[in-house]
Amino acid sequence: MLDPALLTPGEARSLFRDGLVTPTSGWSAGWTQANLLALPRDRAYDFLLFAQRNPRPCPVLDVTEPGQVAASIFDGDLRTDLPAYRVYENGEQVAEVPDVTAYWRDDLVCFLIGCSFTFEAALLEAGVPVRHLETRTNVPMYRTNRDCRPAGGLSGPMVVSMRPVPAHLVATAVRVTSRYPAVHGAPVHVGDPGALGVRDLDRPDFGEPVEVRAGEIPVFWACGVTPQAAVMRSRPPFAIGHAPGHMAITDVRDTAYLVP
Amino acid sequence: MLDPALLTPGEARSLFRDGLVTPTSGWSAGWTQANLLALPRDRAYDFLLFAQRNPRPCPVLDVTEPGQVAASIFDGDLRTDLPAYRVYENGEQVAEVPDVTAYWRDDLVCFLIGCSFTFEAALLEAGVPVRHLETRTNVPMYRTNRDCRPAGGLSGPMVVSMRPVPAHLVATAVRVTSRYPAVHGAPVHVGDPGALGVRDLDRPDFGEPVEVRAGEIPVFWACGVTPQAAVMRSRPPFAIGHAPGHMAITDVRDTAYLVP
Repeated sequence: MLDPALLTPGEARSLFRDGLVTPTSGWSAGWTQANLLALPRDRAYDFLLFAQRNPRPCPVLDVTEPGQVAASIFDGDLRTDLPAYRVYENGEQVAEVPDVTAYWRDDLVCFLIGCSFTFEAALLEAGVPVRHLETRTNVPMYRTNRDCRPAGGLSGPMVVSMRPVPAHLVATAVRVTSRYPAVHGAPVHVGDPGALGVRDLDRPDFGEPVEVRAGEIPVFWACGVTPQAAVMRSRPPFAIGHAPGHMAITDVRDTAYLVP
Repeated sequence: MLDPALLTPGEARSLFRDGLVTPTSGWSAGWTQANLLALPRDRAYDFLLFAQRNPRPCPVLDVTEPGQVAASIFDGDLRTDLPAYRVYENGEQVAEVPDVTAYWRDDLVCFLIGCSFTFEAALLEAGVPVRHLETRTNVPMYRTNRDCRPAGGLSGPMVVSMRPVPAHLVATAVRVTSRYPAVHGAPVHVGDPGALGVRDLDRPDFGEPVEVRAGEIPVFWACGVTPQAAVMRSRPPFAIGHAPGHMAITDVRDTAYLVP
């Protein structure tokens, strides 16, 4: 197989549509990746307001019309072209599947939310190593003790992703990622997992653990799994999300979201 | 009277509550100013989506719960503490008043949208003169030939504000304002008013004209009157906006919206 980093978004989506299930970190380098949350139209205002009130974990990149299966930044089929999905009923996960066509409803509004995988190419370019890319595993993600600002019927904790960064490169990692606010931007926390309510880095709530080596600091970025944590706590009747780490690869270059 | 630039937001709001009607450019230097749009709850999703799709003219800073008269960034009364308001029925302006208490409805959701007055202190500090501050007039604003992306029942043209900038300072003006994306950020257009569909700079659609002197370039920023232009075109049954240039002065420092 080709190096996944070199695949175009369309090529990557085609593989996922054909059934490949894999985390997408490192895929289609230079292209923006996105979290998915699909909610019935009558819950859409609550979520859009939740996102407005919590822009660090929930930077909205695109919103579909009800029932629409493509988006302006995603020229594919949102029901099939992500590697894996989670389906929720009343906040309980009822399925994890590679295709949600069977669960689709015509009143679903899809929200595409920025993903920190987008700035990983820029981190590598700046000389900041990314451990879960080296190990070819999913990024570790944690529920924190920080509650989001609620909106309508939605509330929940902020979820973060973690990357271990050598101490002398923490400032570089902050500087590089702060230029990508639409894909979570600068870290929300550097070091001291306990202050975030994260008890054991080796037991992430989503994704897989990575080693934090001597001389490395765990650095935490807000994560687009936060909407699904809100679904789990707030229990709307129905929702679909991507499986954490298994993202929508969009047709927008990462540089489109770069700020000066 | 004190220099308006030195008033705290609370002091300025108190004067407006007591009946003072004035454009707010130059007031409470260092504090964020905001456009107001109040719509009934059943139109709120359409507008929030319109704003998400048109972030340059419509950067949302805060959204109230229905009927609420204060906001998290505005510790005053949104019905009385702006200098002037416009009231719309079916897209027609039916009143311009200094107080909208008589028009208030319990289902109104207030959207506070970033205003370019916020970055004028930074422009002055960088040595970029601001003509309408020198002349103590309202900023000139124009409807353009650029349509916003529609959302639900809302569509309309982008409105811009214009400041004449000496040619050698245009780059500085771009650089300074691009650091404030939440209050419209970098210009959307530099020079050539005709390309925006602006025929006569001396006849703005809102505010007052200013002189463009020899050696100066008209520089255009997206403007938070855009939501009211959408109301005028799309004709929702009811809406309230600020009178253009007569803004909500918030309790948030301008530096809170500064990006690196």
